[in-house]
Order: sequence, then structure tokens, then C-alpha cells
Amino acid sequence: MVVVMRGGASDVDIDKVVHAITEAGGDAFVSRGKHQTIIGLVGDLTHFAELPLHAFPGVEDVIRVSKPYKLVSNDAHPRPSTVWVGDSAIGRDTVTLIAGPCAVETEEQAREACRMAKEAGATILRGGAYKPRTSPYSFQGLGEPGLDLLQATARDLQLPFVTEVVTPADVETVAAKADMLQVGARNMQNFQLLKEVGMAGRPVLLKRGLTATIDEWIMAAEYIAQTGNLQIVLCERGIRTYEPMTRNTLDVSAVPVAQSLSHLPIIIDPSHSGGRRELVLPLIRAAIAVGADGVIVDVHPHPESALVDGPQALVKEDVVRLRETVARFAEAAGRDVARVDHERSTGAWGRSASVL
Amino acid sequence: MVVVMRGGASDVDIDKVVHAITEAGGDAFVSRGKHQTIIGLVGDLTHFAELPLHAFPGVEDVIRVSKPYKLVSNDAHPRPSTVWVGDSAIGRDTVTLIAGPCAVETEEQAREACRMAKEAGATILRGGAYKPRTSPYSFQGLGEPGLDLLQATARDLQLPFVTEVVTPADVETVAAKADMLQVGARNMQNFQLLKEVGMAGRPVLLKRGLTATIDEWIMAAEYIAQTGNLQIVLCERGIRTYEPMTRNTLDVSAVPVAQSLSHLPIIIDPSHSGGRRELVLPLIRAAIAVGADGVIVDVHPHPESALVDGPQALVKEDVVRLRETVARFAEAAGRDVARVDHERSTGAWGRSASVL
Amino acid sequence: MVVVMRGGASDVDIDKVVHAITEAGGDAFVSRGKHQTIIGLVGDLTHFAELPLHAFPGVEDVIRVSKPYKLVSNDAHPRPSTVWVGDSAIGRDTVTLIAGPCAVETEEQAREACRMAKEAGATILRGGAYKPRTSPYSFQGLGEPGLDLLQATARDLQLPFVTEVVTPADVETVAAKADMLQVGARNMQNFQLLKEVGMAGRPVLLKRGLTATIDEWIMAAEYIAQTGNLQIVLCERGIRTYEPMTRNTLDVSAVPVAQSLSHLPIIIDPSHSGGRRELVLPLIRAAIAVGADGVIVDVHPHPESALVDGPQALVKEDVVRLRETVARFAEAAGRDVARVDHERSTGAWGRSASVL
Amino acid sequence: MVVVMRGGASDVDIDKVVHAITEAGGDAFVSRGKHQTIIGLVGDLTHFAELPLHAFPGVEDVIRVSKPYKLVSNDAHPRPSTVWVGDSAIGRDTVTLIAGPCAVETEEQAREACRMAKEAGATILRGGAYKPRTSPYSFQGLGEPGLDLLQATARDLQLPFVTEVVTPADVETVAAKADMLQVGARNMQNFQLLKEVGMAGRPVLLKRGLTATIDEWIMAAEYIAQTGNLQIVLCERGIRTYEPMTRNTLDVSAVPVAQSLSHLPIIIDPSHSGGRRELVLPLIRAAIAVGADGVIVDVHPHPESALVDGPQALVKEDVVRLRETVARFAEAAGRDVARVDHERSTGAWGRSASVL
Repeated sequence: MVVVMRGGASDVDIDKVVHAITEAGGDAFVSRGKHQTIIGLVGDLTHFAELPLHAFPGVEDVIRVSKPYKLVSNDAHPRPSTVWVGDSAIGRDTVTLIAGPCAVETEEQAREACRMAKEAGATILRGGAYKPRTSPYSFQGLGEPGLDLLQATARDLQLPFVTEVVTPADVETVAAKADMLQVGARNMQNFQLLKEVGMAGRPVLLKRGLTATIDEWIMAAEYIAQTGNLQIVLCERGIRTYEPMTRNTLDVSAVPVAQSLSHLPIIIDPSHSGGRRELVLPLIRAAIAVGADGVIVDVHPHPESALVDGPQALVKEDVVRLRETVARFAEAAGRDVARVDHERSTGAWGRSASVL
Repeated sequence: MVVVMRGGASDVDIDKVVHAITEAGGDAFVSRGKHQTIIGLVGDLTHFAELPLHAFPGVEDVIRVSKPYKLVSNDAHPRPSTVWVGDSAIGRDTVTLIAGPCAVETEEQAREACRMAKEAGATILRGGAYKPRTSPYSFQGLGEPGLDLLQATARDLQLPFVTEVVTPADVETVAAKADMLQVGARNMQNFQLLKEVGMAGRPVLLKRGLTATIDEWIMAAEYIAQTGNLQIVLCERGIRTYEPMTRNTLDVSAVPVAQSLSHLPIIIDPSHSGGRRELVLPLIRAAIAVGADGVIVDVHPHPESALVDGPQALVKEDVVRLRETVARFAEAAGRDVARVDHERSTGAWGRSASVL
Repeated sequence: MVVVMRGGASDVDIDKVVHAITEAGGDAFVSRGKHQTIIGLVGDLTHFAELPLHAFPGVEDVIRVSKPYKLVSNDAHPRPSTVWVGDSAIGRDTVTLIAGPCAVETEEQAREACRMAKEAGATILRGGAYKPRTSPYSFQGLGEPGLDLLQATARDLQLPFVTEVVTPADVETVAAKADMLQVGARNMQNFQLLKEVGMAGRPVLLKRGLTATIDEWIMAAEYIAQTGNLQIVLCERGIRTYEPMTRNTLDVSAVPVAQSLSHLPIIIDPSHSGGRRELVLPLIRAAIAVGADGVIVDVHPHPESALVDGPQALVKEDVVRLRETVARFAEAAGRDVARVDHERSTGAWGRSASVL
Repeated sequence: MVVVMRGGASDVDIDKVVHAITEAGGDAFVSRGKHQTIIGLVGDLTHFAELPLHAFPGVEDVIRVSKPYKLVSNDAHPRPSTVWVGDSAIGRDTVTLIAGPCAVETEEQAREACRMAKEAGATILRGGAYKPRTSPYSFQGLGEPGLDLLQATARDLQLPFVTEVVTPADVETVAAKADMLQVGARNMQNFQLLKEVGMAGRPVLLKRGLTATIDEWIMAAEYIAQTGNLQIVLCERGIRTYEPMTRNTLDVSAVPVAQSLSHLPIIIDPSHSGGRRELVLPLIRAAIAVGADGVIVDVHPHPESALVDGPQALVKEDVVRLRETVARFAEAAGRDVARVDHERSTGAWGRSASVL
């Protein structure tokens, strides 16, 4: 960290800052310039983070240099992680397709959508039973019955599945049935949820908040990691900008940036960012090309009767193109398309999840 | 709502839309133009909101016209509400000052900060016991002991207090002691929390999310209102923009805009938006001038040792100016400075809260 | 400036940076930490600004500390400036009202709007003859005939006027007739225009770009100042954010922030930021309260036939309220409403402009 | 267009709107609902665009449905255009690499950078002689001597080149020597520049403004097209958001969205959006994958001595990877890498440019 003193800061002001740093167990280097003095801090950032240096007299600015996360940072763990969801891996060597219905509506719709997903090459299914909705008048998901439907469908298709959990009280129920827990964009800084999801022992899919910086997103992953659970996959899903033609602006640069900071796998959700069916395949291509470790995609057998986000779901006609697109761009990116590794199976999906 | 058909939409496409609307109990008016056809929808929006018209073949766009909230909208309740917190009112005729420490750190600090607040004219105290923090390595608040400290201090000073609740499991504990529950910016779309806070029967202070539109914010209030609790106060606290010189950009326009849509009182938090002490008083002046029903302000006796947000807290030297500033601009705005109305007291603060 | 080296930077890398700084005439202070080394730079920033330190091997980040502007900064000129437009001042002691039609459409409309402006207490008139329009199919302004109309009207009313100039080739023509030249938001970084406007010798009204940081805005003023013309007034007019309910988000915090960095006067345009008539008066109140040195407001006698921005113009019924609002909030802010100072007049308006 | 009336609008209000539309030569369809009335407009949008319907009494909102551009829209010209720059094409079938130095600094640097570009497979060179810079104290480009250097280098290498023009007065000089004129992000709404660049008869590279919507960007292209010049290439270069880790946020979705609206080719600038060398290749991959018709890339032989934007330039070690990356992802995208077509040559590069 660097503390920048105001032009008119006195020696007493400077001494106070140096003293506080030394007290906290750090070293302070004072560089006196013609107009301004700069104080460099060296030592364990964790202590300094608590020092309210900003509020000291004569301080103009405090500039953080080191990254504030530890467990999920590249420094701690230089090799990229692979996260296993059941027998399906998400990591730096492969491209993993996760697909399924945005929300579970009926048994038929869930089964049909999951079959479409498997046909397209998905090795992990997705589906929503608990839906966070902007309006209290919108469909809120089927809840536990939806979860049961998803579980039955996934078991039949012999694939693991990921589903969102929206509140701490539901974590136990969802973790008992799902193979991976999703924390949605709106809950990225729901810190109690992060902790409970971490403690559930399942791999976690952590979506970036609508307006979260990459730093804040990785810090949210650190909350999960602190519970001892490092089976975390980051998911970029578009950020809020002024542009009205897409629901959100997919920030593909976030993939290489996050990879330069953290060892966690990172995937992209092209369905929710674009918000329009015709954007999904182009954004999947961009996602794989930029280096994402996978994509998570909405599919729906009858989008015109979908209760949630129909306009962005891929349909039956898209299944073959989806499979081919993933294959073609994975190859260009020098990766294999992820496959289910039943050899690895321990008979207890999800429970076997671990970070390699 | 208006459904805009693509240039090449067929009559069959148009008929499908009209049929779906009629089925949902609405009326559809078809306007055929040279290049495009427009379908106007009339009827109860609640039903149409569920129709995935966006996903119908031939549909280019669906434009929502009516406002999607009911209980908190001006249509339902044309006169502005007054919310009572203990014997202190927040409403359209007065300017209410809420003040206190950002976080409770020690008994001395809490008492001193609350005394400063009362001296400045605050009729409601604020203080944080449970703090949502971006980093798991930052001070997370004292929790329940902090709550007890706040309660004791507030009772001594004979003022009600508001404090944040960050997760559904804490609602009961906090509601048993606090006079008003705050939902923070990060939790604005934590829908389970909104529901439980609503059901606690206390007045609620609902901060606008860092990147929430005014529409989404009022929809979040609707979630609370649906529990039967209309004692809701909106709080604008700055939105996230590209400008780095302020922590957030205070959106003063949100005050008249929200007042044109909802009957709920609205206040401004100048401390967290600006993030710098020297901006607090100018932003308080702007808040009162633009028509806010109150302001909520951080004060701290020793900000250079503050564990949270020291740089933005007002200090002892500011107390008199704070009092005078509120008085001067309340008068210019044609309002009275709010005062505690002990006549109204029922002996059970907070429990007596109601919407007039 | 501070140069932050990567964790793995070698001594050779560090020496290269130190050498480059010394070559440029500066001093470098090296602070070696356990994980990272920081290099503090002291000396004349102007030289270092040219050093591409970012591109040196081993450099992770370069953090600018000092402010990059000189002529318009508070350091150079600690007392706030007053800019004279004809006999009308804009400065820290007064609140100046600038008003008139957004665009000149007809002689009658221009005269009537300017009379409304004078009646409301404006001491400077505004009006657009050259209009930058997003669409080539929109009304582009009357051009020079519009300028003549404005001049004639202003002379009759004995008030100076400000008008926008959109391209360098028009500067001479406009400067010959107008008392103050406006550089619009879209042209804030049209550097050639800034230079030519500066050299025209007239006071300049510099609007903040739609997405300009406060730093970039003040740097744009520095371009003008470099021509020797310090008669510059900054104008905040709203920035682009994700919020759709207002045309732009008025950033009132920009007023105290800019005042802490620069000696130039700063005013607010509440008409273009809000984009709706009912927001204009509340935003004027906020502008004056937060400390703006003036406001610039659209008025129109018949907004329903306006060719540009009718929805936001104040109308005849608003004139008295506008006058009273400015007076009331100027008083609360401890300022006088600006008046024309004919004593000061030299008979050659505008030519007498100077910075006090 | 759709006019939405307020709840309380009277029949007289509605009649006024209908009358104004009819007067303007359009048809109005009135849909009366229980709470609100909607008026659909059918006819030539160009006329209605001038109607200030927003300002009519009783009008709540005016929603534009049709796209406001004509010459550059897909409706007018359903097949994608190919723009020729000298003997090099930019269009929907190929991927074109444009490369060269951000700014021309010396003859050696320019020659070396351009040779690197050709070696990497560039068929069009880029280089800046006139640089728009945020600070007046930064290097402003070599001006005309830089232009001459670029021209000589390009002729030697038998490739056309594109260079930026920053002000109308320079258009003639630049157009006499360059094969394609670039309008930079800061000048996207410098309408006079757009017109003069259009009239120069050269192909134009139009960068998206830092905060321009896709609609505004295409409207800016329409300004150029109105001069009769349809040789326009759009260039996405990142938009300004709150995220600090990248200079700008590359909006890859803008490619398929713009392609769905306009027949113009569209390329991506990965150098200026990311602002960091290590992001350039990943973003090039994403650009080609998402469907861009080309990329424009900074290269520099000695970035640590670059006067402008050194940190983002590719270096000699990157040349082979750049060539291979473009080839590999062009193939995955089902396109050829563009090659110079000397067969097509007329001996007078640039003058022969045309839209096929």
C-alpha cells in the first residue's frame, strides 16, 4: 500500500501515519518530494486493511497495491484448479458445457430440456427451482418439487446438475439433492449465503454481481474459500452498463483478467447477458475463444410458453449447432470438449467433489 | 404494454399474440403500419407480465407501459405516507435527521457518537452491529453485543434507532431490539430478507442497490409491502458509475422521480455516496433542497481510529454546522425540522409504528 | 507517481526504471517489501507523464498521484475566479441565472423566451443557433441567422448571451457576435475546437462530456487555458449511467469536487440532465444548495411546438417560481443573486471579459 | 412510434396528438384502455422525429419503434457490404488484420512496426500522425511529417494505410495521402468532421464513442453516408464502465447486434479496450469468434520507449502468434484470412475504393 500525503501535510501528520503502520507490525518508507510526501507500506496487508489511514490528518489518498485475497489467489496456488461436479470436470484443459432450463416448470419441460442439453454435449445440467425475481408478481419457481424433478431427471440422464440457492435456510435442502450450488448475481455479496454455501461441502458456481468489480467478485469467492471449500467456479454473466440493446454487457475481458489473479476456473453465461436467442451462439464462440473453461446455457423445448426468460433460450433446432460450435471453438482454443469421466466415479456424485 | 412485431411477421404470428392476450383476459388492439404492426394491450398487467410474449415468433420487442408495482405506487395511495419510528416521523412535511456511528465499536464510541447525533438534532439514531463487508478480513461488526449497546444508548437518549439486518436468521433478534430495520444496498434484492423484514412488523429503511434502477428499487419495496407492512422508507445512497473521485455518484434526481411514482418517504445518505467528509455537508444541502424527507449521516468522535468508513464521518467540530445546515435548508424547502413527538408516545416505541 | 513492480521483478528491471526517472530529471525512492517493490517518483510530473513506465519489464502498475493540470488548478491560483460575461459575473459569491431557448427557431420564439429569461432574473441569455444532433434528420439549428436573432434580442434586452459553437470553422463568426462561447458535452474532447475557442478571447462555457471523468473535464479546460484564456466556466450537465428514468444522472458531487481541484467557476444545467420539466426546479434547488455558482436553464414560450428538447423547457407559468427559487436557495447558501453591473460596463461587452 | 398518454389525459389531449400526427402526414391508431390510452403512429418516421410529442399536454412517454437510420440500415441494403481499402477488402467473408504503430514517432520505429504488421499478415497498415490526447502536456503526434513517413512506409510495403483525422481542417491533407480515414472515439459525434470525412471520398473507419450506444454509433455512420460515401467500417473499441481492471470494457455483443441492424462491416480494436498487452491476443480470438470482420492492433518494436500507449502494443515475439491466432480463429469462424488482391488494383489505391 502507498499513503499519499496532501501538499500541506505536517511532519506530525507524517509521523502519525508511520507510527500507526509500525504499531500494526509493518514497515513504512517515507519518500519526501518537493510538493508531496509518499509513504510506502510493506508487510502483511491483512493488518493494514484495518487501519483507517484514509481518515488520518494530512492523508490525501491510500492506494492499495497488493491483492486483498489469499486462498483463491494465484499467489497461493499458482496452478489453475479443476473443480469436479460429480464425474464432470471444469478446468483449464477442457471446455465444459452446462445446459438445461432456466426454470423448471413441468416434468415434461424439465425432461425435454435436459435431454436437449445432453444431446448438445452438456456434462452438467442446469435448472432453476428457486428463482429470484425482480417482481413479487412473477413466477418464483417450483421450489422443492422442482428440485426433486431436476434430481430425478439428472439421475436418469446420469449427469450431475447445478441449481441456484437463494437464501441460507434453503442451503441444506438444496445441497442434499444438487451436485453443485449456484449463487446468483443478486446474491454475490449476500455474505451469510456465501458462508453457508461454502460449508455445505458442494462445489459452488459463483456468478458475478451485476455491478461487481472483478476484485469484489474474487473477494466474494474468498468468503466461500474461508469455509475450507475451494471447489468454486466463477461465472461471468454480463455487467450493467448504459447500452440498452443487450440485457447486460458481457465482459469477456474478465476471463483473462480473473485468470491472472485467481486459480479458480471461470465460465461464461451467454444466455443471461445477451438476453436474446440470436446472440447466444456468437457469445458462446467468444467465450470459448477468450479462454473460458466452459459455458452455461439456457435451453427450452417451447420457449414461447416459458415462464422465465424464454426469449434467450436455445431451442431444438439449435442443439446440433450448439454441439458443433463448442467442438469447433474448443479445438481452435487448443482444448478438449469435457466428457463425463465415469472411471472417476465413486458412486456418490458431488460428495466426491474435490480440487485437484 | 405494447408488442412490436418484426417487419416480416405474418398474420399467423399476429393472431397468436392476440390470442394469448385474450386468453389472459386482456384486450388487444392491432395497428397495422406500412412496415410494422404494433399491438396494444389493455387490461390487468399482472396477468400479462407472465406471458412470455418476447419469445413468440415474429415479435421484435415488448414495451411495458404501466408501472408494475401496486401497493407502494402513487396510484394506490395518492397522498404521501408518513412513517413513524418510535415517536419520530419521516414524511413529506418535515426534514428528519438520522445520525450515529457507521459501526458500533466500543461502548464509549457508541455513546459519544449518539450524543453528537442528538446534539446535531437527530430524532432517530443509526448504528451498525452487523456489517456486510466486501472482504472477509475486514471488521464484521460486534453483532448482538453491538445491538445491545445501541439499544441501551438509544434508551438513555430517549431516541429510537435504526440498524441493519443482513440475513433472514437475524431478523427476529434485531427486530426485538431495534426500532427500525435497515436493508442495505447489497441486499436490496435479497428477496427472502425483504419478506422476513416485512413480517417483523417494524418500519423498514430500504437502501437503493448500488446498481438498481429506480423501478427495481420500488419493486423491492413492493416485496416488503406484500407482507402487509407499508412502513417503508426509501434511501438513495449513490449509484455506481465510472467516476472515480467519489465512492458513488449520488443520484439526487431519484428523489423527485421516486416521489412521482410512490407514496413512500425517501431520504438520502450523503456519507456513503461521497465517501469523503468534505462532501457530506454540501450533499446534505442538496438532499434537502431537492426534496428529500430526511438524511442519514455518519458521525464519529475519533474517525482516525474508526474500524469502518472513518473518512466520511462527521466529527465534533461539524455538529453545530450540521444542525444549522439542516435548519437553514429545511426552511428554504418550506419544511419544518422533524422533532420527537412525545405526546404521540404509547410507551412502546416502534411497536406503535404506523403509516398515516 | 508511484511505480509498482511485479512480484517477480528483477534488480535489473528496478534499475531500468530508476535510471529512466533520473534521466528525466526526477528522483526515485525504492521501497523493497517482502513480496513487492515500490518506486516513488519525485519531481516535475510533466516530464514523467511522457515516460512509458507502464511498458517497462517488471512493472505491474503506475499510479499517478499529483494532479496533471496546472493553469486551472487550485495550486496555481488558490482564490476562486470570477468570470465576467459582459457586465454579468459568474463566481463564488453569487448565484448566476443563465436562461433562454434551447434552440432559436423563430424571431418571435427567441424574443419571447429571452423576455421570460430576463423576467425570471437571468443576467445572461442562452440560445442555440448551431445544434449538434444525434440524427442527421433532426433540426440542426438556424445557423448564422439564428445567431443574428440572438444578438439583436440580447442587445434589446441589454443582456449578454452565450451560444454553442460546434466546429473550429465557426469560431470566428460566433465570437464576433456572442458574448460567451459554449463548448458542448459532445465536443469536450474536440481539442482543436478547445484551442480555437480559447484563442477567440471570449469567455468559454465548457460542458462536461457525457462520460467524462472530473479529471478529464478539468484537463479539457487546461487546453483552453493554455491559449492564455482563463475566462472559463465549467458546466455539469449530467453523466450517462444505467438509469433510464432520467435522460442523464446529474452528478451534484462534481461541484464540490471540482471546486477542490480548480479555481474556475462551476454551474449546473438542470434542463438537459433531467430531461423532464418537473425535474428542473428541484434540480435547480439542489444545484444552488450544493454550491454551484449558477444554473443554465431552458425556457420556451410554446414547448409543444419546440423543435428541440421541448419536454424539458420551463414555461411562462414557471417564471415567477424560477425567480423565487433562485432567490430563496441563494440566500440559504449564503450568496447573493447575481445582478448586471452596468457601472462596470466599458461599452464593449464581452471584450471586457477578464478573470479577477 | 407509440405515444403513451398519462392516466388522466383528456380527450382534448388525445385529439391534439392525433391531429399533429395527421398533419405530419401519418396515421394514428388510438387504443383506449381502462387506465391509459396508447396511440400508435404509422408512416414515415422522418416527419414524426421532428414532432415534439413529448411536450404535448397529457403525454407520458413516446416510444420509438422503427430504427432512425436509413442509408446504413439493413432494411435499405440487406446484403452485408464489403469496403475496399486499396486492394484490401473488409467484409463478411474474410477476417482482415489491420496493424501498425499507435503513433508514428520516428522513421525507424514506423518502418519496423509496419514490417512487423505485414509479417503478422496485416493487409492494411495503421499509424497515428495526429493524436487526440487527454492532456495538453502529452505527445500530440508528429502531424504532417508523420503522415509522410506513414505514406512512404506503406508504399514501400505495398500496403494501404489508415490514419486518424482529428479536425475538419486536416481532412484534405490527410485524404490526399492516406487510403482510409479514421474517426476516433472522442470524435464520433463531431458532426462537422463526419461530414467532411464523408465528402473526402476515402473509406472511413468509424470508432464507437466511449459511451455511445450502438444506435448513436450507427446514426453517426448515417451522417457520413448522407454525403454519398458508404465506404464505412464500424470499429468497436470498448466502452466506459465502472470496472477499473481494464481501460475499457470490450463489448463483443456489439458485433452481432450492429450486424443485425446495419450492412456495414464491423471490426474490433482489442488494444485500446484492454489497455494491456496480455489481453490483446485473447480479445483478438474473441473478436474473430463473435463474428467481427477484422481486428486493428497496435504493434511496436520497442514499447518501453513508446510515446503513446506502449503497455498495450504487441512486440516482435508476438508476431508469429498473432498471425497464427488470426488464421486459426478465422478458420473456426468459417472465414478466410483476408489477402491483398493485386488483381483488383487500378494503380490508384484508395481512389478506387467502393462498396460492393
